[in-house]
Formats: sequence, structure tokens, C-alpha cells
Amino acid sequence: MATVPNDANHGCPGTQDEQAGKADACAGCPNQQICASAPKGPDPDVEFIRAKLSNVKHKILVLSGKGGVGKSTFSSQLSLSLARSDASEVGLLDIDICGPSVPKMMGLEGEEVHQSNNGWSPVYVQDNLGVMSIGFMLPNPDDAVVWRGPRKNALIKQFLRDVDWGELDYLIVDSPPGTSDEHISLAQYLSLSDVDGAIIVTTPQEVSIIDVKKEINFCKKVGIRVIGVVENMSYLAMPLTEMRIQDPSDPGRDLTDKFSEFLRSENLENCVACAQVFPPTKGGAEKMAQDMQVPFLGKIPLDTKVAMAAENGESILEKGPGAAYNAYKEIVTVVAKSLGEEAQFD
Amino acid sequence: MATVPNDANHGCPGTQDEQAGKADACAGCPNQQICASAPKGPDPDVEFIRAKLSNVKHKILVLSGKGGVGKSTFSSQLSLSLARSDASEVGLLDIDICGPSVPKMMGLEGEEVHQSNNGWSPVYVQDNLGVMSIGFMLPNPDDAVVWRGPRKNALIKQFLRDVDWGELDYLIVDSPPGTSDEHISLAQYLSLSDVDGAIIVTTPQEVSIIDVKKEINFCKKVGIRVIGVVENMSYLAMPLTEMRIQDPSDPGRDLTDKFSEFLRSENLENCVACAQVFPPTKGGAEKMAQDMQVPFLGKIPLDTKVAMAAENGESILEKGPGAAYNAYKEIVTVVAKSLGEEAQFD
Repeated sequence: MATVPNDANHGCPGTQDEQAGKADACAGCPNQQICASAPKGPDPDVEFIRAKLSNVKHKILVLSGKGGVGKSTFSSQLSLSLARSDASEVGLLDIDICGPSVPKMMGLEGEEVHQSNNGWSPVYVQDNLGVMSIGFMLPNPDDAVVWRGPRKNALIKQFLRDVDWGELDYLIVDSPPGTSDEHISLAQYLSLSDVDGAIIVTTPQEVSIIDVKKEINFCKKVGIRVIGVVENMSYLAMPLTEMRIQDPSDPGRDLTDKFSEFLRSENLENCVACAQVFPPTKGGAEKMAQDMQVPFLGKIPLDTKVAMAAENGESILEKGPGAAYNAYKEIVTVVAKSLGEEAQFD
Repeated sequence: MATVPNDANHGCPGTQDEQAGKADACAGCPNQQICASAPKGPDPDVEFIRAKLSNVKHKILVLSGKGGVGKSTFSSQLSLSLARSDASEVGLLDIDICGPSVPKMMGLEGEEVHQSNNGWSPVYVQDNLGVMSIGFMLPNPDDAVVWRGPRKNALIKQFLRDVDWGELDYLIVDSPPGTSDEHISLAQYLSLSDVDGAIIVTTPQEVSIIDVKKEINFCKKVGIRVIGVVENMSYLAMPLTEMRIQDPSDPGRDLTDKFSEFLRSENLENCVACAQVFPPTKGGAEKMAQDMQVPFLGKIPLDTKVAMAAENGESILEKGPGAAYNAYKEIVTVVAKSLGEEAQFD
């Protein structure tokens, strides 16, 4: 992985002036989008982080351009899927600093982190799956956590440097959304740590795809391999029996019973309705991946089974076959294969 | 609106030390979540911003805890709805710096901002609706824009200070998600500007609600009135004729035609399927609003009409009656009323 540009001599007045409110002085500098307030000189912690993570075989970043596309759900389900095999040791690091959803999604709310001589100990969901999240460190989950830039970066660094993972086959890093401060820091801190690559999660809409293109360009710029793009919430897949059917011209008229009767009489009670909820007006993630020449890993449907799994800290693979189940199995298999491994689910 | 805590004398070593990597020295300071890298002393621009916005009758912030909940879609549709009446002058300011979606959602992609003696001129969608977005200023929409903290805050300030809105009835501010740097800055910069309040957008899931609680507490802390909470993507409302119907036990068997026939024969071709896509496991936004004692403004369904309107820069109110149409009309009416105004749609 290449290092992020970090050049103190490009003519930009730099950190302290900016910090003092003279940010506009940077306006004419060609590196303004990257350089502002970047730390000067090599950071010794980058080497500590490399050493700390040297017992982790595969390091995967999960990124998204926009928030709310299901990045944390995907990270959680990817970790749970990889840990289905007892032979795999898996770690999930949640550094989505402003909205850490992983404790909730892994069923670990209210858990606390313990400190040992070797650093912070992850919270274990099962013997071979440890989780670390900033969410474990907040005194009151309802409080607004307002981290100013430098503190955010210090905290990300601490999470990379001070967690005692032990030996791992996979470390999944759930990153903050967007290509902002924390992204550059993350790339800098991991620049010596031999990251396998990034999985980028998006939804089908153009507003999300626009942001993903930026994310892919960011990865290219800092030399992080794109393992592939996942299209989440591609379509809704839901049993018709779980839907209410209404007559819009007569809001008082509920047709659900009439439909149930039809489904029963035709022996179709298992049938599933599929709906394109977010129209991919310009071809969605698959076409974008093709255009940007990065692998497309697959489509994951909106499925209440996933939503319920995420709310209860369970694996979709325990919920039994279905559209999302199949999608996750396929995607995890491809991801493992692209790292030279074989996924095992039982 | 009260000012945000900005106290240089609380014993925290402060900005420059933090910037130099000593952020941890702040760890014991009770103000650490707010103070880090806040500018020192009164900022003269706060008064400039007040003067600049003194011709704006109502100023509304649109906030969300999590990204991807539809905040920009809501801001766009709220602006379009308020501008349905020729008598209302409306401005929409998009300061979602890392993922500005508003140009896309208002059909203004590729537009440029012009500078006049009085500042930047908004881009006009129609005579009485002007839009300003950082998206207009990016040379290549696919490039990653990586704004370091101080630059972000400088840019937000510039957007509040330098746009020439003229006289406005409503200014809608689409804010960045989360309670991060940019939020504190926004609250500070607007602290003298008599903001009417904030509308907070969420989805029904607990992971989003958790973040909204933080957002409400943030508003309370900095003295911004919460106009109310909107639950977006509350449920899917879609004509059954737009869904594919499948037999999961036999993926090759498509039942869509069979269903179409049934719908035709029963004269039910207009019927709409409603589905709870994101299960509100703990009561959703309405219960949360009740618990937190803030107004609940209403539920907006997932509706492909909204998605298409957002992709094409149109108003949902032009798309004809439907579940989302009704929801927007009701919510905009309540919002206007809470500001002592009356919404007019024709």
C-alpha cells in the first residue's frame, strides 16, 4: 500500500496557521484537499501498528461513500459469516466514530472493554470472534459525542495500535463513511500494515453511486486495492403474506384478507414479492464497477431477515435459506477466494 | 439560541498541542468532547452572518444522526413544497460537505455558481427557489474531496456568510450528518442568527434512533429548538403490479403473470402493497419522540415516486396523490404552522 501524500514543503502555510483560522491561505495550493492539518514527518506509531497487526493474516477495510447504506450491517455479517468455521479466528474493529452501530448489531450493547498488559481486550461474541468498538467506551449511549478532528484521529490510531487481537485470520475494519479526515488518517496509519484491500458498500441509487466513485478514486490515490463493490438494498424480497394490501382510492378498504385467501386457495403462501425500491437510474453499482474497472461482488436484497438479524446481533446464515442468505454466502465465498482462502460455513 | 461552550480556560491544553499529536492530554478535561480545537474568543463573522441572514424570515436546519436516512431528499422536497406557493421565497443551502447530494436531487448537476458584488449567487430552480451547494464548486464530481477539519469549518462559515440570498421567507439548511465538528461550527456560526429550529430525520430502525437521541441531546445542549422528528422510509408503499412475484422453493418459477391475471380479474390493478422494510423493534421514531418530549411530525413511506423525484430533481407534489404525497403535504403543513405560517401548495 502506498503512503498518503504528506508533503510539508508544497508552499501551503500548513497546520498551525490553518488551525488559527487562516485556512483560506491554502486556497491556491494544489494539495489543499489532502494536506491540510496532516501531521508532519514520519509517525513512529505507524510502525507500532504494523508490529501489532503482524499476527493478522488478512486485513479488510469496509468502506462506503455515503452513510446509511448498510456498511456496519455488512461488516457485522461478513465477520459472523467468516467465523462460521471454527478454524477461522476473526476480529471486527468498529472505528465509525460518530455512530458506532456494531455493538448493537453484534448483540453486545452494554459490554465493557477490559485492559490487560497487552492492551485492550476485544469483547468476544464467540470463541473465535472478537469485537472492538468505540461504542463500548461511551458512558451514555444517548449522549452526543462530538469529536473534533485531532481527537478523532488520535482515537483511530489508539484503536489500531492498542487492541490485543492475538492471532487472527481476518480483521474486518468498519470505517467511518465518506472520504474525510478519518479516512486519510486510517490510510496513513495502516500504510505499513499490508492491508489486503477494501470492500466498498453502496445502494443502487445514483446519489450513493456518485459517492462510491469518489471512494474508489480515493483508494486508487492512496494505493488501497479495491477487493470489490457490494450493492446493498438492491431490491426488496419479502413474503407476500407479510404485506398489507390496500386500495389507494379507498384508504378504508383493506384487501389483505382477500389476498391471503387467494394465496391459500392457489397454494402460494410461500411466494415472495420482489420490488426495486431504490431505482438504479443509471445502471446501479454493477455498471459503475464495470466502468471503474473494479470487481463487482454481488447484490444483497432488502430482507427483513437481515434487518432482524442486525437488530438482534445474529448471523443471517442462521436464519435459513432466502434471498439475502444466498447473497451473503456467495459474496463471502468470493471475498475469501480473492484472498486465497476458502470460506466454510458449517 | 444559546452559544456553544467555547471556554479557553478550563485547563485543557487546547488546540495547538492537540494538533501536535498530544490529544491524549485532553483526556481528563470535562469539556473534552466540545472544546477540542474550537476557535478562541468571539468570532466577528458570527455577527456578519447574523447581518447577512437578517432578511431571512425563517431559518430551518435539517439534521440527522446517521447518514443515508434521506435527509437531503427531505430537505429538497421540503424546499420544493414550500416554494409551491408563488408568494414564498425559498432558499436551500446544502452544507453536507463530504457528500453534497442536493445538486443531483434538485436537477442542478453541472450548474456553476456566479459571484456578484454581494457575494455568491444561488442557482435558481425556479423564480422563488434558489439553491447553494458545495457540489457546485467541485471540478470533478467523481473526485474524493477530503476536507480536513479546519477547512471544513472555514467553508461552512463562508457558505453562511457569503451567499447573496436576498429576501427569503424560508432558508432550509441541509446539514452534515452526525454530531461532529461541523455541527458545533454550524451552531456557533448561527448563534446570533435567530434560527427557528431543527427538523431531525431518521429511519425506523433502532440503530438510527440511537443516533437521533444523541442529535436531540445535542440540540438541547446548544439551545436549538427541535421543530420535530420525521420518520423516513417508515414502510414501503408500492403498486403490486410493479412487483415481481416468485416462488422461493423454485427460483425458475415466476408467478408475476399469474398475479397480474388475478388482479385484472378482480379489478384490483391499482392496489398497493405496504411492507415494514425496517422493523421498528422498539417502537420507532414516534415512541422515541414521545420519550424525549419533542414533536413527532409524521411518517414518510418508501415510495418509488419519491426515489424517482429525487433522482430527477422534481417535487413529489407534482407526481400526484399517493402515500408519500400525503405524508409530505401533512408534514409541510405542520412545519409551516409551527412557525406561525400557512403552507399553500397551489
